[in-house]
Amino acid sequence: MHRDRFYTLAASCPDQVGIIARVTGFFAEHKGWILESSFHADDDAGRYFMRIEVKADSLPFLLPELRERFRPLAESLQMDWKISDSAVKKRVVVLVSKQEHCLYDLLSRWQSKELDIEIPCVISNHDTFKGFVEWHGIPFHHIPVTADNKTQAYAEVERIFKEVAGDTMVLARYMQILSPELCAAHPGQILNIHHSFLPSFVGAKPYHQAYERGVKLIGATCHYVTADLDQGPIVEQDVIRIDHSDSPEDMVRYGKDIEKTVLARGLRYHLEDRVLVHGNKTVVFR
Amino acid sequence: MHRDRFYTLAASCPDQVGIIARVTGFFAEHKGWILESSFHADDDAGRYFMRIEVKADSLPFLLPELRERFRPLAESLQMDWKISDSAVKKRVVVLVSKQEHCLYDLLSRWQSKELDIEIPCVISNHDTFKGFVEWHGIPFHHIPVTADNKTQAYAEVERIFKEVAGDTMVLARYMQILSPELCAAHPGQILNIHHSFLPSFVGAKPYHQAYERGVKLIGATCHYVTADLDQGPIVEQDVIRIDHSDSPEDMVRYGKDIEKTVLARGLRYHLEDRVLVHGNKTVVFR
Amino acid sequence: MHRDRFYTLAASCPDQVGIIARVTGFFAEHKGWILESSFHADDDAGRYFMRIEVKADSLPFLLPELRERFRPLAESLQMDWKISDSAVKKRVVVLVSKQEHCLYDLLSRWQSKELDIEIPCVISNHDTFKGFVEWHGIPFHHIPVTADNKTQAYAEVERIFKEVAGDTMVLARYMQILSPELCAAHPGQILNIHHSFLPSFVGAKPYHQAYERGVKLIGATCHYVTADLDQGPIVEQDVIRIDHSDSPEDMVRYGKDIEKTVLARGLRYHLEDRVLVHGNKTVVFR
Amino acid sequence: MHRDRFYTLAASCPDQVGIIARVTGFFAEHKGWILESSFHADDDAGRYFMRIEVKADSLPFLLPELRERFRPLAESLQMDWKISDSAVKKRVVVLVSKQEHCLYDLLSRWQSKELDIEIPCVISNHDTFKGFVEWHGIPFHHIPVTADNKTQAYAEVERIFKEVAGDTMVLARYMQILSPELCAAHPGQILNIHHSFLPSFVGAKPYHQAYERGVKLIGATCHYVTADLDQGPIVEQDVIRIDHSDSPEDMVRYGKDIEKTVLARGLRYHLEDRVLVHGNKTVVFR
Repeated sequence: MHRDRFYTLAASCPDQVGIIARVTGFFAEHKGWILESSFHADDDAGRYFMRIEVKADSLPFLLPELRERFRPLAESLQMDWKISDSAVKKRVVVLVSKQEHCLYDLLSRWQSKELDIEIPCVISNHDTFKGFVEWHGIPFHHIPVTADNKTQAYAEVERIFKEVAGDTMVLARYMQILSPELCAAHPGQILNIHHSFLPSFVGAKPYHQAYERGVKLIGATCHYVTADLDQGPIVEQDVIRIDHSDSPEDMVRYGKDIEKTVLARGLRYHLEDRVLVHGNKTVVFR
Repeated sequence: MHRDRFYTLAASCPDQVGIIARVTGFFAEHKGWILESSFHADDDAGRYFMRIEVKADSLPFLLPELRERFRPLAESLQMDWKISDSAVKKRVVVLVSKQEHCLYDLLSRWQSKELDIEIPCVISNHDTFKGFVEWHGIPFHHIPVTADNKTQAYAEVERIFKEVAGDTMVLARYMQILSPELCAAHPGQILNIHHSFLPSFVGAKPYHQAYERGVKLIGATCHYVTADLDQGPIVEQDVIRIDHSDSPEDMVRYGKDIEKTVLARGLRYHLEDRVLVHGNKTVVFR
Repeated sequence: MHRDRFYTLAASCPDQVGIIARVTGFFAEHKGWILESSFHADDDAGRYFMRIEVKADSLPFLLPELRERFRPLAESLQMDWKISDSAVKKRVVVLVSKQEHCLYDLLSRWQSKELDIEIPCVISNHDTFKGFVEWHGIPFHHIPVTADNKTQAYAEVERIFKEVAGDTMVLARYMQILSPELCAAHPGQILNIHHSFLPSFVGAKPYHQAYERGVKLIGATCHYVTADLDQGPIVEQDVIRIDHSDSPEDMVRYGKDIEKTVLARGLRYHLEDRVLVHGNKTVVFR
Repeated sequence: MHRDRFYTLAASCPDQVGIIARVTGFFAEHKGWILESSFHADDDAGRYFMRIEVKADSLPFLLPELRERFRPLAESLQMDWKISDSAVKKRVVVLVSKQEHCLYDLLSRWQSKELDIEIPCVISNHDTFKGFVEWHGIPFHHIPVTADNKTQAYAEVERIFKEVAGDTMVLARYMQILSPELCAAHPGQILNIHHSFLPSFVGAKPYHQAYERGVKLIGATCHYVTADLDQGPIVEQDVIRIDHSDSPEDMVRYGKDIEKTVLARGLRYHLEDRVLVHGNKTVVFR
C-alpha cells in the first residue's frame, strides 16, 4: 500500500494487441505517475485483466473527470472497469456469530489502521460480542436467526447494509447460510471464510471430516459467497500441518489461526481491488 | 536414523494402564538401550500405538531370541507387532511409467545411501527408463499393460515381486490402476503418490481439475494402495502455492517437485516402520 | 490438550538404561493412566528428556503426595523435574508497548479460553491500551521507561510480578530491553517475540535489515529472554514469503501475522510444560 | 513458460512518467502480441524494472531487427536491456563435487525438457559422477582443486566455459570457493546454492551452526556468486521445519531437499530472464 493518495483502475476486457499501450498511454498523456501495475492474459477465456495504481496528484484533474476521460477508451476496449480512490475508505460490515478469533483479528487491524477501512457496524445472530464491539465505538446489531425467521432476518441484514452504505460484507465465521436473495444481490461483495481447504470437506464440521479422512494438513479458504454453498470463487487459501495426535478439537484450535490469517489476506486483496472475478475463478494481483 | 545397528519395535494393542511400563520394562530388564521411542493413544479407537528403537548390541541376545522372549508379553497385551533390524535392508520394487522425476529422485537417494535400501528391480509399462535404470546396475522389467492383458500383466508383477522377495512396492507415478487382487494381497505394502491434495481431485487429471476450480494451492498425497482408488490410508501430504497465472501445464511442473518430495518422505517413514495403519488412518511417528 | 484433569511431569536427567521403564513403572504401579508421553535422548549432552501427562483421578492420591512419592525415584535418577496440575491456571503477565497485534491476539485466545490462563495484569511503558485491557477486566499498569529511570522501572515490574504471583512474563512486542537483573532473576520464565528469523538480523529494525539484504523470506522468533540480547534459547520460529515489491513497511505488516502466531505457539508450548531448556537450546515436545 | 516462440525483454532504467506506455507502445505499433508483462518501481533507487514476453511471429521482423529498432527507445530511456529468444537454448555449465542430489535433480529436469537447456559439460573436482554424467551423453571434465593449483584450476574452468560458449555457471553443491578473478569475470552469471537461510550461518558447516544455535527451521539460498563469499544477490530461498530430535546429519539430509528445489527454482528464474540485479539485490518477476 502506497502512502500517497492514488487511484486504482481494475479492469478486464477481451484480449487483443495493444491494450497495455493504449491504457498506459492514456495515463502517460496526462502525466499520470504509475505506482504499481499488473497485467494478466487468460488464454483460455481470451480475456485480459489489469490493475493500475496512479498517483492522484500527478494527474491534472480529479477522479470524476478521470472517469469521464477514461470512458471512451474503456468502451472501445469493451472493458469492465472501475476506478477507486485510496482516500475514500471502504465500508465493511462484519457478520459474526459466537467465535471470537476473526472478529478480534479484524478489529485489531482496524484499530491500528493496518486495515484502513470504516466498519459502520457489526451484525450478529448472538449478542456475545455486543460489549466488545461497542467498546470500540462500532454499532452492534443483534439479529437472531431461527428456522422460522430467516427471510425477515436477512431482509433486515440487507436493510442495514444499505442504510450504512456498505461496500463489502465479511462473514467472519458467521456460521449461518445467507439467503439466496442476499447472495444474488451482492455478487463479488460478500467474503466468507470456510474452515477447510476447499473443495475438500464442504458443508458442516469440516475439521471432523478431515479427522475421519486422516489428512496431514488442514486449511481454510476465503471465497466470495454465491447461492451455491462453499462453491464461490476462491480468493485465498492456506494450510497448516497436523498429525495423528491431533483431535478434531485440536484441529479447530489450529484452524483458527489459519482462518483469521486467510480471511485478513483475502479481505485486503479485495479492498485494494486486487481481485478480479471471471466466471467462478479469480485473478488476484498480489 | 541412528548410526548404530538397532531393532525397531512397531506395535499397537488395546489401550490399558501400564503398557509403556511393561514394554520398556522388558527392554530395561535385558539392559536394552532405547535410542528413540514414541507412543500414541487413540482415544476414539481405544487403541495404543508405539515405536521403539533399541540398540542391537545392548541386548544379550540376537533378534530371533528377542522375538521369542518378547512374544509372551505381546500376546498378553493382544498386540499386533513386528520387530525389524536396521542391518537388514528393505527390498523395494519401484514401478514407473514415462515420467522421470520420482524415479530420478529415488535413485539419487539410493545411490547416496540416503535411502539405505535394496532395489531388486524396476518395473514399467514402458521401456523409457530401461537404459537409465540398468546403468545403475538395477534389473528392469518392461511389462506393457493394455486393456486386454491386465490380469496377466499384474500376475507377472506379482510373480516378480515374490521372486525378488520384495518388501514394498512403490508406484512412482506409475499411472496405472493395479488389479484389486494385487492390492488385496499387499495391504500396507504398496505406496502410491497421487498428484493432488486428497481428498480433493480424485481420479484423472487432478491438476486440470484444480485449474478449473481455481484453487490457490496444489498438493500431492502419498498413500497406501487399496482396492478403492485414491481412498487408501494417507501417509504424507504437502502443498505448493500457485496463482491465476499458472496454466495446468505449469501446475504439472510445480506439482512434480511436491510429488517427489512427498513420496520420498512417505517412503522413508514406511521403511523406518514409522507408519502404523489402523482402519483407513495412519499413525506416523516422525 | 486433554479435557480431563491431568498432571504433567516435565523432567530431564543423565541418560542411562531403563529410565522410561522406571518412570512409567512408577505410574503403572499406582494405576496412573498416561494420556500422552514424549521422550528424547540428547546424545551429545548425554541427557534424557521426558514429558508425561497422567490423568489425575486415575491416581489414588493428590498432587502433593504424588510429588512426595515420586521424589526418591527422581533423586536416584538425578533428575531436574517438576509436576504441574492442569487445573491450576498459569498466571501470565503481559508486557506491551504501542503495537496492538500480539495483545489483541493473546486477549482473543484468553477470552475464548483457548489459552486457559489467568492474566493478573498487563504492564506497559505507554498507556495506549489501558482502556482496551481494562475493558476486559484486567488491571493495567502504566510504567514509563526512560533512559534515566530504567532501574526503578524494572524494579517496579519485578515488584508487580511478585505481587500478582506471576509464573510467566510475555514480552508481546514490548520494544524495551529488560534490565540484566530482571533477566537473571527469571531464567526460562520470560518469553519474547523477536521480529526476525534469528540469528539473522539481531538488534533494532530487523525488517529494514532484511530489506537491505534482499532476503526472500522474513520471520519471527519466540525465545526465552536472557541477559544476552536476542541470544536466548529459541522456542519457536516461522517465516513468510516476501518479494522485491515489498517495502520495509509492507514487511512490518506481514511480519505482524507471523509474530503473533509464533508468540502464541511458543507461549502455549511453554504453558503446557512442553519446553525443556538445556544450555542455550530447547527440547519442545509438541 | 509459453509454448509459442517468444522474445523476452528484461530491462531497467531511471524512473519517469510514461515508461510502460512508451515501451508497450513500441510493441503495439508493430502488432507485437504481449504474452506476459511485469513492472516494478524501486522508489528508493528511483529505478524502474520490467520484463515483457512478446510472441515472436506476431512481429513483422526478426530478432536482430527488433533489437535495432528498439535501441533508440532504450537509449532515450537510458536503459540497461537485453532481449532473448525462447528458441535459443541457454548453455549451462554445471559444477559439482561429491554430493549427488542437485546433479540428479538438474539432469532429471534436463532429461524431461522441463529445463529446456543445453548442458555442454559438467565440471567436477572429483570423478565421482563421471559415469553418470557421460551416460547422459554430456561431457565430463575432472579438474582437481588443491591448495596449490587453484589459479590453474580456475583458469581451466574459465577456458572450458568459454570454449563451450556457456551462458551460465551453476555451482550445484560444488563445495569450493571460486577464484576472485572468475567471480569478477561473470557477474550475474554464476549461481550458487548455499545450504543455509542466508544471512544466517555463512561459511562452513551451516547445518552444524544451525544445530548449535537451536533454530527450528533450516533453509537454503540460491544467490549469484560474487567475490564476497555468501554475500551475493539473493535469488531464491526456502526453509524446512526441524526439531530438537534432528541431529546435524538429519539436517544435512532434510536440507538436501530444500537445496535442490531452491536451486532449480532460482536457475529457472535466471534462465527465463526473470531476475534483474541492482546493487546487491534482485528483482525476481515470477
